[in-house]
Formats: sequence, C-alpha cells, structure tokens
Amino acid sequence: MTCSSTSSLPLTEAYQAFLDQVTEAGLLISLGVRGVYGYGGTFDAVLQGFDRLVTKRASGFKADVMRLPGLLSREHYLKTSHMENFPDLMGSVHSFMGRDREHIAMLAKRENGEDWTQDLKPSELMLSPACCYPLYPTATGTLTSEGRIVDLLSQVFRHEPSIDPCRLQFFRQREFVRIGTAEQALEHRRRCLELGRDTLAEVGLEVDIVLANDPFFGRGGRVMAASQKDQDLKHEFTFAVATAEKPTAIASTNCHLDYFGKAFDIKLPNGEPAHSACIGFGLERITLALFKHHGFDPDRWPADVKNALEL
Amino acid sequence: MTCSSTSSLPLTEAYQAFLDQVTEAGLLISLGVRGVYGYGGTFDAVLQGFDRLVTKRASGFKADVMRLPGLLSREHYLKTSHMENFPDLMGSVHSFMGRDREHIAMLAKRENGEDWTQDLKPSELMLSPACCYPLYPTATGTLTSEGRIVDLLSQVFRHEPSIDPCRLQFFRQREFVRIGTAEQALEHRRRCLELGRDTLAEVGLEVDIVLANDPFFGRGGRVMAASQKDQDLKHEFTFAVATAEKPTAIASTNCHLDYFGKAFDIKLPNGEPAHSACIGFGLERITLALFKHHGFDPDRWPADVKNALEL
Repeated sequence: MTCSSTSSLPLTEAYQAFLDQVTEAGLLISLGVRGVYGYGGTFDAVLQGFDRLVTKRASGFKADVMRLPGLLSREHYLKTSHMENFPDLMGSVHSFMGRDREHIAMLAKRENGEDWTQDLKPSELMLSPACCYPLYPTATGTLTSEGRIVDLLSQVFRHEPSIDPCRLQFFRQREFVRIGTAEQALEHRRRCLELGRDTLAEVGLEVDIVLANDPFFGRGGRVMAASQKDQDLKHEFTFAVATAEKPTAIASTNCHLDYFGKAFDIKLPNGEPAHSACIGFGLERITLALFKHHGFDPDRWPADVKNALEL
Repeated sequence: MTCSSTSSLPLTEAYQAFLDQVTEAGLLISLGVRGVYGYGGTFDAVLQGFDRLVTKRASGFKADVMRLPGLLSREHYLKTSHMENFPDLMGSVHSFMGRDREHIAMLAKRENGEDWTQDLKPSELMLSPACCYPLYPTATGTLTSEGRIVDLLSQVFRHEPSIDPCRLQFFRQREFVRIGTAEQALEHRRRCLELGRDTLAEVGLEVDIVLANDPFFGRGGRVMAASQKDQDLKHEFTFAVATAEKPTAIASTNCHLDYFGKAFDIKLPNGEPAHSACIGFGLERITLALFKHHGFDPDRWPADVKNALEL
C-alpha cells in the first residue's frame, strides 16, 4: 500500500482520498461514525512509539504523572467557560435513571419511533474537552514556590464529525502542564516550543510554528479569537497531513494566563491566582503525519526514525 | 504507605477504607465523581506492565490488533439489546447543535438555575458498554472457515457510581474475541480460561473461577440472569481486592452464542449466524488487586512478579 499524493485535490476530496487510503491500509478502521475509528496494530505501534519518545525527551521536566479517563465532573465543567465558548463541541453524558415502569415507557417510545432520549437524565459527567481540565480541580489550594509540572495523557472529546481523518471526535492528547507564576508559565511555554519542534523533527516532521486561536463559537467568538491572537497565547505546530493546502495542527502550546487559577482557586504563595501553560501533542494526528510523510510501511522508514520510535 | 487489611470491616466501610488507602498513596487521584479517577505514575506503570504481559502470553492467538476509542455508534447500539437489559448503565453522548440564538437561550437557562441540558441533542454516539461491541459491525458479512480472533483494548462505560475503587465508570478492558462456529467459540473460551488463570497466577493472583451472570436490569432481569447461568455462558476470575467478604471479578470469559452474529449479520460460510466468545481483562481491577496483594511499593514485590511486569 503506497501513500500517493493527495495535495492537488480540492479540500474535501483530499480528505476523502486520504481517509480512503488510511482505512484501506488498515491504519484506521471505520466504526460507522465520522471522526470515530478503531486503530490497527501498525498504527498503534507507531503511536505508542511516539508517546514513549515524548516521555524520554520530556524527562527534564521531572513531571508528576497523571493518566486520565477522558471524563470531567459536570460540576467542574460548569466552573469553566467552555459552555460559553465551545458549546458545539460539548459532550454531555446522559443515562437512564428510572425504574421498571419508566423503562417500559422508554422502550415503547423507541418502538414507536419517538424520541426516547428525552427519558434520559444528565449524569454527573461530561466528556473532557481538553486533557488538562480535570487536573486543575485537583490543584485547588496554595502552590509552593516551585509550582507544579504535570505529565498528562487523556482522551479528549470534540463533537465535530468530519471526513478529515485528522479531525477525530475522541482522541489522545499527551500534555505537559506548568502551574505557577506568570514567569514560570511563560518559561514553560518557551521550553515546550523547543520540545515540540525538536521531538517532531527527530521523527522527520519539520513543522511550522504559527500563532493560532481556538475555534470560539458564534459571532461573539470572533472577538475572543482576535484577543487570543493579540495576546500571543496559542501556537500550533502545523504539518501538511491530508493536504498541503491546509496544514494540520499536530501539537500546540497554550498559555492560559490565570484563567484556570481563578476558576479553580489555585493560588500562588502570595495569594494571587496561579498562571498555567501547556504543550499538547495530538497523538493520532502525529501518527497520521508520520504515515503520510514516510509512507504506509514502517519497515521502510528511515533508520533514525525507526530507532527513535523503537520500531 | 502500607496496605493494611480491610477485610474485617463491613462492606461499605471496607470499600471506603481501601479507597482512602489507594488515594492517599497517589495510586488513584480523586476527580470529584465516584468511580472516576486519575491514575498516578506508579499505578500506570503496573497497569501497562500487565497489559504487556497479556500481549506476550496471548501471542499464540495470532490475533488482529484493534484499539478502540470507547465510543459506539448510536445506530449500532440500537441493534443490540443493551437498552433492554442494562439501561441503567448506559452512557449517551449529547451535544449542543443550535446557533447563536439557541446558545443565548441555553446560557440563560443555566444562569437561572433551569435545566439547560434539555437544550442538548443526542449525538450519533454512545459510550461503549463493552470492549467488543464496536468490533461486530466491522465484521458484518461472511467469515472464512477460520473465523477471526481479534485483540482489543478499549475504555468501557458503566454508569454505576460507587465508593468501591474497583467499580469505575470508565475503565480499560483488554479482550480477545473469537468469531466463528459454535465449536470455535467454545474452544476459544476453553483456551481463555487457561490464559486468564495462568497469566494472573504468574503475577501472584490465585483467582477463583466462578459461574456468573451479568447485572440485568429490573424484575425481568432475574430470568435473564438465571438463564445465562443455566447455559454456562459467563465465568468470572475473582480475587479479594477491597474485601475478602465480596471478591471482585478482575477478568471474565463470555460466550455470546450467536447473539452478535444475528444482531450484526455475521455469517459462517454455510450461511448460519456466527457465534462469538471472549475473555476480558479488567486492567484497573487487576492493577488494584496487585497493589492489594503485594503492597503499595512495587520495588518490594516478589522478583518474579516484577520480572513478569518488567518493572
């Protein structure tokens, strides 16, 4: 299976062509919903290899390890402004909380083609919209002067069904977050920009680093996006994956200022709200970029890339 | 941190005591919702070690690898009888699908303390109730005479908030599924009973293998449970984790007869619906069992257990 060029096609055709290639090669396995796939063994081996490489290259952070299930307390979710800024990406988990009689009524609705989902109730859980959201409520209180660096891995949900195989609905982010003073957060961002560029270059991915903004919702969101750019808060590491016409952000750094410090009452020793910053590696996107760039047969990848990934 | 005995306490106290121990030791990290935790580095290292051991010990299956995101197409979900049998465990993913005006209305409801979640709509996704559900729709069609053996890893959702640290809402199952004839499925179950017992014994967990049933919902569920036991379909590998009073199922084998073959139109070469059977390892439960049994400091575990887990 070769990985032929899709870069001369219009955008949607380029996405479809790349999706066809990666599913035919068994890297992604269609599960019947756009943006939701199984991952074949070859894909998984490369993804795990890159994850291990990040562990090694980020060892200087001496970060606390936390692995997360991809869920967020609804109560914690509501302390953020995600519902204001990204409601369209939200994943709210609902379940059935009735007894026999309500159950029979719900089954009857389904049988009659009525909307049975209105019989469900919101659980105490949301799907986590970003890797580091569940971290901050665990850090409520007063930091030491060193602050904290935390190494996170989580699935992250974004309800944005797409034919672009890089745009998944539930995907893995590997993150390194610094919570501390404004200076510590900025210094972390500086180190993360180096870490991201160097680690991606080591596996042959020469990225562009570009100033970026989050996809804030609606008319008001344009102001938010412009403000985020003006303040130099978000940088994306972009690479041409499905198409050169629209490079994909395969990692990013984000400065949150004191947003999470205020939302979750995380304080510096002087009583001020803590700042935070992070780098997030999009593991599935990086893996797809590797297959796009080096071809679909890892046995034939450059020796130094295979070594770096322990393939 | 030592792992003191909790076996003489009443059940809820034993659960609470064990939960306190594992959170104080940083193995589990409270995220504010019962049954939803972050996992510390020591916990994760042991879990990954056991997962690798399973890979080695199950290599004889020569299984196709599929890694899954823990989501299931709503359309596929509705082809199963999960909603009839386990509605209370269901996780249905809802999102906001309106525009600016509806968004403002939803935010106003939240502001006024009204139920804003009724403004969400069901997405095309459910949380996956078991590791192997998403597999079967990918197998629709006619099998070869060899059938298929598939190696799966997925998070699995069960809405059953509990203080028992072994009862998580979203947890990792490692599964090996056989799809084929009734004989092939039974032979797979036989091999899986050996695989499970031997692999768990290798890390020091001497389990009981007991006939079991799924927790079918409601009054009608008792008949289903009895029938499942009568037919000898489900076996659990149990071990005293939080308490000896009520051992925990840390793995199980399941014969599905031709249930999934019929639901997803998977046929044998002779046109009959395929049978299936699987073993599922509950990775967090096994990891908790290891800490309970060997103590909270893996450096002090028996050398052969450390070797097996590559710690």
